Amino acid sequence: MDKIPTSTLKRLPQYIEVLIRLRKAGLKEASATKISVFSNIHQTLVRKDISFTGVVPSKTGYEVEPLQKAIEKLLNWVDTSSSLLVGVGHLGSALLGYQEFSQKGLSIVAGFDNDPAKIGTQVHGVPVYSALDLTAMALQQDIRIGIITVPPDSSQLIADIMVHSGIKAIWNFTPHKIIVPPDIIVEYVDMFASLAVLSRRLAEQYKG
Amino acid sequence: MDKIPTSTLKRLPQYIEVLIRLRKAGLKEASATKISVFSNIHQTLVRKDISFTGVVPSKTGYEVEPLQKAIEKLLNWVDTSSSLLVGVGHLGSALLGYQEFSQKGLSIVAGFDNDPAKIGTQVHGVPVYSALDLTAMALQQDIRIGIITVPPDSSQLIADIMVHSGIKAIWNFTPHKIIVPPDIIVEYVDMFASLAVLSRRLAEQYKG
Repeated sequence: MDKIPTSTLKRLPQYIEVLIRLRKAGLKEASATKISVFSNIHQTLVRKDISFTGVVPSKTGYEVEPLQKAIEKLLNWVDTSSSLLVGVGHLGSALLGYQEFSQKGLSIVAGFDNDPAKIGTQVHGVPVYSALDLTAMALQQDIRIGIITVPPDSSQLIADIMVHSGIKAIWNFTPHKIIVPPDIIVEYVDMFASLAVLSRRLAEQYKG
Repeated sequence: MDKIPTSTLKRLPQYIEVLIRLRKAGLKEASATKISVFSNIHQTLVRKDISFTGVVPSKTGYEVEPLQKAIEKLLNWVDTSSSLLVGVGHLGSALLGYQEFSQKGLSIVAGFDNDPAKIGTQVHGVPVYSALDLTAMALQQDIRIGIITVPPDSSQLIADIMVHSGIKAIWNFTPHKIIVPPDIIVEYVDMFASLAVLSRRLAEQYKG
């Protein structure tokens, strides 16, 4: 499989959102210009990004449904990957209930926590186990994706356990940088980085 | 106030995390090298980023506590800003309960939803109102920050209402690009962009 640039990968989900909107509006075709307007991404980039799918537009544009499917295939969102989540707090619980994941190829099959009050319960239909059972379950079920929603202090420990348990890709929702072997994929959802920009820009603009 | 580069702003919260860890470990001083190791950011960047605070290191390093405070001041995290949140679903509810925001200068004073079952309740101690009351409350309480956690389809509508209600900075947790006047600050927490990279990299590495 060819390596696709990170910047392209990050934009592709936005095209899917646009294509879903266009489909809902009854459109069967969409030009790069139209996708550009709706996604607020320059049409040169739109064309370049979409070219990775191999889908070629007709004179009147891309076919909406096949393009959506092609992008989803490129992102590996067509096959569903099982994942586990560690840290069933507010954010972890929210993610367990996030129905959109099923359209993005992600199925969270188990939650883990060290709170006895949570262990043995279900959160949004997903069973919660003791963190001590993580390794056995990950290995038995050949789970490759681990989601970290623990307090930042514990993220490295959990990452270490995940790596030992055969997890190959870690989705880290804590701001803590974790250290893992080079073959392990790590992606961050760092809301505090985003909050930092928002907060400073607001001060710059309105505090003078 | 000087404009600080976005890339620097996004890294600054990571230094705060490192400084908190070092303080917990009893350290009073930290060199750029040490901060670099713990944050996994090159020390040239560490020095450059920190220089925006005006804090100058001694021969043995930066004083940990004053540096943390200086970064927090730079990010406008010392003053608490009131914000409102629209969309009290799984993710919105989780954010209402997110205690870390209080250390990052953010206080969510009200949630809004259009579900009658939620209106009039409290979620993690935050009152939930009808979305129809948003404008009045935002204007009365001079709230500048709006958080969007509605389904993507509704994000533009909510953004429009926020702008009309005097909101100056929008923190958008949906993947939908919203269109706002140029003086309005918008920051995204786009977890699907991150999931796209994770999912594709996993396929590239393990599907051949």
